[in-house]
Amino acid sequence: MEHLVIIGGGAGGATAAAKARRTKPAIKITMIEAGKYISYAACGLPYYIGGEIKEISKIILRSPRDFKDLYNINVLIEHKVEEVYPAKKQLLIRDLIKEETFNISYDKLIIATGSILATPGIEGVNLKNIFSLRSVSDAQNILKVITETKPKKAVIIGGGVIAMEMVESFTKRGVEVTVIEREPQILLNFDPEIANQVKIYLERQGVKVLTGCSVKEFRGNSVNEVEAVITDEGELEAQLVLLATGIRPNVKLAERAGIFLGTTGAIKVNERMETNIKDIYAAGDCVESTHIITGSSTWAPLGSVANKQGRVAGENVAGGKAIFRGVLNSMIAKVFNFTVARTGLSEKEALQLGYNIVSGLVVASDKSHYYPDRKDITIKLIGERKTNRLLGAQIVGEGVVDKRIDVVVAALTKGMTVEEFINLDLCYAPPYAMAIDAVLVAGNVLLSQIYEDLGVITPVELKYRLERGENLLLVDVRTDKERRRSRLPDQYFIPHYELEKRYNELPKDKELILYCYQGKRSLQGLKTLKRLGFKQVKSLEGGLKLWPYEVIQ
Amino acid sequence: MEHLVIIGGGAGGATAAAKARRTKPAIKITMIEAGKYISYAACGLPYYIGGEIKEISKIILRSPRDFKDLYNINVLIEHKVEEVYPAKKQLLIRDLIKEETFNISYDKLIIATGSILATPGIEGVNLKNIFSLRSVSDAQNILKVITETKPKKAVIIGGGVIAMEMVESFTKRGVEVTVIEREPQILLNFDPEIANQVKIYLERQGVKVLTGCSVKEFRGNSVNEVEAVITDEGELEAQLVLLATGIRPNVKLAERAGIFLGTTGAIKVNERMETNIKDIYAAGDCVESTHIITGSSTWAPLGSVANKQGRVAGENVAGGKAIFRGVLNSMIAKVFNFTVARTGLSEKEALQLGYNIVSGLVVASDKSHYYPDRKDITIKLIGERKTNRLLGAQIVGEGVVDKRIDVVVAALTKGMTVEEFINLDLCYAPPYAMAIDAVLVAGNVLLSQIYEDLGVITPVELKYRLERGENLLLVDVRTDKERRRSRLPDQYFIPHYELEKRYNELPKDKELILYCYQGKRSLQGLKTLKRLGFKQVKSLEGGLKLWPYEVIQ
Repeated sequence: MEHLVIIGGGAGGATAAAKARRTKPAIKITMIEAGKYISYAACGLPYYIGGEIKEISKIILRSPRDFKDLYNINVLIEHKVEEVYPAKKQLLIRDLIKEETFNISYDKLIIATGSILATPGIEGVNLKNIFSLRSVSDAQNILKVITETKPKKAVIIGGGVIAMEMVESFTKRGVEVTVIEREPQILLNFDPEIANQVKIYLERQGVKVLTGCSVKEFRGNSVNEVEAVITDEGELEAQLVLLATGIRPNVKLAERAGIFLGTTGAIKVNERMETNIKDIYAAGDCVESTHIITGSSTWAPLGSVANKQGRVAGENVAGGKAIFRGVLNSMIAKVFNFTVARTGLSEKEALQLGYNIVSGLVVASDKSHYYPDRKDITIKLIGERKTNRLLGAQIVGEGVVDKRIDVVVAALTKGMTVEEFINLDLCYAPPYAMAIDAVLVAGNVLLSQIYEDLGVITPVELKYRLERGENLLLVDVRTDKERRRSRLPDQYFIPHYELEKRYNELPKDKELILYCYQGKRSLQGLKTLKRLGFKQVKSLEGGLKLWPYEVIQ
Repeated sequence: MEHLVIIGGGAGGATAAAKARRTKPAIKITMIEAGKYISYAACGLPYYIGGEIKEISKIILRSPRDFKDLYNINVLIEHKVEEVYPAKKQLLIRDLIKEETFNISYDKLIIATGSILATPGIEGVNLKNIFSLRSVSDAQNILKVITETKPKKAVIIGGGVIAMEMVESFTKRGVEVTVIEREPQILLNFDPEIANQVKIYLERQGVKVLTGCSVKEFRGNSVNEVEAVITDEGELEAQLVLLATGIRPNVKLAERAGIFLGTTGAIKVNERMETNIKDIYAAGDCVESTHIITGSSTWAPLGSVANKQGRVAGENVAGGKAIFRGVLNSMIAKVFNFTVARTGLSEKEALQLGYNIVSGLVVASDKSHYYPDRKDITIKLIGERKTNRLLGAQIVGEGVVDKRIDVVVAALTKGMTVEEFINLDLCYAPPYAMAIDAVLVAGNVLLSQIYEDLGVITPVELKYRLERGENLLLVDVRTDKERRRSRLPDQYFIPHYELEKRYNELPKDKELILYCYQGKRSLQGLKTLKRLGFKQVKSLEGGLKLWPYEVIQ
């Protein structure tokens, strides 16, 4: 009987195994997992630590016994595949308990080895009470430390999505949290003004967030427990440290077997999830995907992607014709009562890829403005000027974010134009949306930017052009009182109400960028200057309020 | 100066006026409204009556004064346009207060006369405390009766979306509610098994729902207040009656002016919102729209549609090039903690239009199954067998419905196939979805139905084929005990565990429909019979549990 072997029992592997069985009852299936658990919901671990999920068993979906009983699939846990020999169609396997090795043969193979922690090479990283969160055991160990030693202060190294979720979990357990991010912003997949809103929100919840800050060393006490994190900006007390510094695809095994990696460093597969070697498929965090908008390779190590890829690999390995169509790098995180989500290209990414873009940023209500408990959300849409096509969205706020971002996901998947987008016949009743949904309001703003070219410049674009050394002159049009608090590195200061008489102080042959607090007075000033014959003048979108970079104080 | 006149100050008219002004500052704009209020959120009225919205002013978005101050638009309230003279470009207007008429000229005209109540011709319909809910005054009058006379019992005539919303409002005010619907199901835009879930839910909330029941007469007391509703099934006490029997487009004025109506009886417009007469546009409840899937005309009198059409008419009348692309008859209603929503074609509609369809019905979790407060939702997707295209969706339940239905809206708008749909890279984190979102789970089921043809028949299809007189034989495969409670009008009864030995009792040359309680045993039985050589055998989807029609008791 044909033998299908699956390496890895995580989301990708377990889904592939179950789907292969449903597709073809008459094959032998073996799943091999190095860890103790298979088929658990890794994304649920923060909620176990936070206490929303009381029992770890809730997030372990299936046991090896279940796989045998339900699907007639043999599972070897605590067994590690050490080598793949494609020519012989054999695997060298080590039993991690008995410390013995043996060979087995396969007819078809699915590699679902997932990802591994990119451990930072920092002194003291092996001290006690420094954790990563990659497995059920990690979660259990972290919770044990919290409940038994009652740490006062925790430091999370890294400012990505997992870090954001864990901030909430630690805080709920009564631990004071500091987040340390090496880059100038948290949530690097987001544009800075969106990420900055999360930072401000976290700070309002009493969380300290240090960006542009590097960890030098972890210091331990006499019993080798961490007691402090030494950064280039000073020392932080910490009885608990979480390393959320990033992961990379776990591909060493595949690489040694001659399986090609792609430009991202993850395994290269076609849309059937086949590798370059016949009868070897791969799925989950160890593979790279095609970006639906750019067509290039991207690495999207997420449970939702792994599940879809696992289904496709499992169906095809059993003779099916399923296709995995790629990703949009869609991402969402809950941070207390705040939600932050993205899909498609950010402005940063789009600019780097050379797209000629416009962006529409609005703050709008998630429900009808008169409906109780309505909340604001901030929506940023990115569109391509030439094609009028929607390229991406980021949404953040206390209101309902998830529904709007998923509408954009569907729109991006089919290459929808902004003009088609604003026509969407979304469902409307006051408890669910405004008559024109918030995301369509953002679409309307974006379309005006495309058609009318209001002369708005985003913080990201301004920063980008300043860094390229372009000769832009910044003009503060606020009041003297506002200016004394903080300002941008500007060249001129003329309050908006004086522009009409003092415009001669400004050069007409240079590009001027007006800014105020929110972007309204600067837009008004722009109109005034245009009327007075200025050709190259722009208004900074969102003003100083949404400016996510440094200011002069 | 060019003069734009807008007839009607509701959602369509007010939006058109504001958009026209933003598009073209240098025109004169006049808006004429027969009622007292303009630009109010009619969809908010149930929540004012229910008490969620405390002050009526919250749902009045703009006053005539606001329109003057903000947009320089002249508004005449309590003025009725009595005739349109396209040849002279004149309007005959009646001042409803002074009871005087006068003429004004227009260069461009937008007709936004909305809809009117289709008052049922029932004896006693003019008794006191019988209301419809069409205006701010209606809402105020209803609330006055509730607070001043404290009615014990209310009857709502009609079982559409407004009726559903008002059930909640009345109940919250402590009034006992009975809903009377003439047709065999409430929510006629939905398939019966979905509508039936709402009925069952309402009944659990203590609301009486009478379907297939006609009102004969309203009986009044000595002071002409309603005291009873006489139906063909008996008499119901009622101190308050709401007529929610439906509306029709308000088109008499347009018709007399020579403006063409479409097949739906509403004004026919092109995608620029132009009528057949030059310089006359129309928008809102008085016009018909193109259905994005079928391409034929449909009437979609909803605030969201009126707003979009108003924008398009307002922009174009001022020289713009906006396009309204049509509707999907998307609809959503909140009924206590239940949400019911639809978009695209229902199964009923698709069958009537001759589509060869498959349907996928699943009950799935709105969040990860281990996340607190997760709730189930029922999702029904309709797909076309030939093209593999998604045609429609209906979703109902206590979980998050609105986000999933809007994803389907975007998918339908671009003609997405089921196979593209299941690949959607929707955002995933445990508080927002399962790793494979519930709506994609439904997509997966639908795709299996298309590819594998499991031999399932839906209640709608079975009913449809029985009514056409097709020779189908129903087989009950439940136990004797279950059968004694209730059954379908079947021809055979063989418990599933006896099929193997008693299959000879069944004819092989007829089409057999097996049914059980939930659809599992009948699907098992189907497989058994197919193995035994039966070619024409189907299993009833959802079994007796989801059967929304009558049963034999």
